[in-house]
Amino acid sequence: MFKVNEDYLNLRGSYLFSTIAKKVAAYKEENPGKDIISLGIGDVTRPLCPVIIKALHDATDEMSKQETFRGYAPDLGYEFLRSAVAENDYRKRGCNVDKDEIFISDGAKSDSGNIQEIFSKDNRVAVCDPVYPVYVDTNVMAGRTGEFDEEKMQWKNVIYMPCTRENGFSPDIPDNTPDIIYICSPNNPTGTAMKKDQLQKWVDYANEKKAVIIFDAAYEAYISEDDVPHSIYECEGARTCAIELHSFSKNAGFTGVRLGYTVIPKDLKDEKGNMLHSLWARRHGTKYNGAPYIQQRAGEAVYSEKGQQEIRGLVSYYMENAKTILSGLKECGYEVYGGVNAPYIWLKTPEGMSSWDFFDRMLTGANVVGTPGSGFGPSGEGYFRLTAFGTHENTKEALERIRRLG
Amino acid sequence: MFKVNEDYLNLRGSYLFSTIAKKVAAYKEENPGKDIISLGIGDVTRPLCPVIIKALHDATDEMSKQETFRGYAPDLGYEFLRSAVAENDYRKRGCNVDKDEIFISDGAKSDSGNIQEIFSKDNRVAVCDPVYPVYVDTNVMAGRTGEFDEEKMQWKNVIYMPCTRENGFSPDIPDNTPDIIYICSPNNPTGTAMKKDQLQKWVDYANEKKAVIIFDAAYEAYISEDDVPHSIYECEGARTCAIELHSFSKNAGFTGVRLGYTVIPKDLKDEKGNMLHSLWARRHGTKYNGAPYIQQRAGEAVYSEKGQQEIRGLVSYYMENAKTILSGLKECGYEVYGGVNAPYIWLKTPEGMSSWDFFDRMLTGANVVGTPGSGFGPSGEGYFRLTAFGTHENTKEALERIRRLG
Repeated sequence: MFKVNEDYLNLRGSYLFSTIAKKVAAYKEENPGKDIISLGIGDVTRPLCPVIIKALHDATDEMSKQETFRGYAPDLGYEFLRSAVAENDYRKRGCNVDKDEIFISDGAKSDSGNIQEIFSKDNRVAVCDPVYPVYVDTNVMAGRTGEFDEEKMQWKNVIYMPCTRENGFSPDIPDNTPDIIYICSPNNPTGTAMKKDQLQKWVDYANEKKAVIIFDAAYEAYISEDDVPHSIYECEGARTCAIELHSFSKNAGFTGVRLGYTVIPKDLKDEKGNMLHSLWARRHGTKYNGAPYIQQRAGEAVYSEKGQQEIRGLVSYYMENAKTILSGLKECGYEVYGGVNAPYIWLKTPEGMSSWDFFDRMLTGANVVGTPGSGFGPSGEGYFRLTAFGTHENTKEALERIRRLG
Repeated sequence: MFKVNEDYLNLRGSYLFSTIAKKVAAYKEENPGKDIISLGIGDVTRPLCPVIIKALHDATDEMSKQETFRGYAPDLGYEFLRSAVAENDYRKRGCNVDKDEIFISDGAKSDSGNIQEIFSKDNRVAVCDPVYPVYVDTNVMAGRTGEFDEEKMQWKNVIYMPCTRENGFSPDIPDNTPDIIYICSPNNPTGTAMKKDQLQKWVDYANEKKAVIIFDAAYEAYISEDDVPHSIYECEGARTCAIELHSFSKNAGFTGVRLGYTVIPKDLKDEKGNMLHSLWARRHGTKYNGAPYIQQRAGEAVYSEKGQQEIRGLVSYYMENAKTILSGLKECGYEVYGGVNAPYIWLKTPEGMSSWDFFDRMLTGANVVGTPGSGFGPSGEGYFRLTAFGTHENTKEALERIRRLG
């Protein structure tokens, strides 16, 4: 008789976005005709750039002809794309990453979910609080998180590192020593980013403890300040302790195109000399069959001169929204964070209001939807996330309404 | 200090195709100018059909405009594609499969590798021998297979079901009772297919033992005989015991496009009533972010009237090769199987010759590359696989050379 994976049954319901959807639907039904603006979800809204569209068309045409048709892609990804990544995202930034250390994939969500699989079940994981839920949930599914503490709303075998205004949203070194440390910078949901010296401290700590940092750089294209690193490999010693995850979703608008990559340096080994690079290569070769050819050509186009210009325009468009939100909220007297190196604005709710009460106030008072911070973890309570991924018109209108609400 | 997943370290090297590549390279170096024809690898060679190309272009154009741009896809896949699958692959065949039981993915290899994850580690797995290596390797990576027996070349906790000419390449019910049974029909590598009554026997057995059948239907488009089922859901009772994997790689030539789907009926539950459908949905939602929009539109086009015509032409092209190989080998006096309902021909090596000796004979004598059957498992010893995925010209030339070899 077959048995299911009981670790899956331990998963908590992921009620955040469905609860939001239900509340919005109920409000709409009671108030027909109201125009609701959503700044809640982290999905892009602008069309793909012309150079990307051209690359998709050209690659499609190649697939239509016998001489240029391509079947199975190489496991790690096409050399043309891995070379472009190595050159543009690493060598130009002074980082030592070889093209054979880059694994092309269908996106950072898959990689951030699957990467824990190459580690033993008895590693101890540390995450920031608040946190992108995939890091925690995929470790629950692997049986790595212990029991759930209903009181604290935390998994007993996970180390939570609070990120609040008190520590500038940068995690402190925890009391218990973790084996695997998830860091996302620029951060979802807080919209804040680590400075180079802050990240260097983590790299030094990981090397000292022989821990691995899983560094999620999905939002690096939004960095506007000089002292914020775009890659963890800008820090000395990162090649022996860090894995880096990248996405084309947020710089080039590929949420529906699906492309990303993961870097595992060959210097990253356990005490017996096993290379994590080899384990991940084996996973790629056995449970995956490569990203589609036409998508990989679109990824290559991102790194062309014209591609870089166009995606800078895309990022600027969204960051204009971030400025609109930041300045608008400040004018209304709100305490706000993020929005400078990331497309997320993290607002401290006024007068100790709960995240969900503030959500209701925004929905009913301004017809604007955001995300309650408590949905990302206990330390997110008392915060509220707004995203810069709307249109200029909607974003301005949303802020006008918030201003009128007072 | 971090620790790696030690189950990964138990994996055997996957030397089959790299050994073949090395032997071919060495032969070429010693014999410059020789024209080698490969009928070894299961990758398609024909360009995509016009209707697919048009769908890819049209969907790309949609992604270029604000009004029609699409971001994140729904977790399960777009409704337009799931509906087309439900209607064409199931309802028209009299199978009861709802569109909400269909999970669109980036291909059957990912799904066949990931599906074992929703099961407990202590399920006992049964596979055919010879077998597609992914079924076994992914269970090794999950720690489900026990130790490797170097003598038998088998994992001690896996039930191997020999498929040889003695049983018509259809597995017998094993002595030990499995919890999970992998069946691929039409089969890779033997090219043979189960008749409906043979598959019904397995469905009845699985229901009796409360086992799950993971049914890989990747090659169903190649079925030419009436009494061979295209789906396991043609068998009575399959909804309570079977998961079905599908690929667009071999019917529509999508090996480089990447699209597939998996069916998990909602009636498939463990003894506590846990639905495997819910577990797989959770995996999709947590570790995956949907297949690309443009790929899903290409998948939809496969089911259009024109698409069905065109892909039938594609399948016919390859099956013409299968006929060329089958009749050519028979004329030379070889004992051959498969090639009627599948794009693979499974040849019994003459005079008890080993698979690798026969490989060498074909390479050096005819400059034709195939795959030694022993690479797919111990019961593949003494067999040799040829694929129908070449061009007509190459396939005819290869058979001409084999004929000359005598």
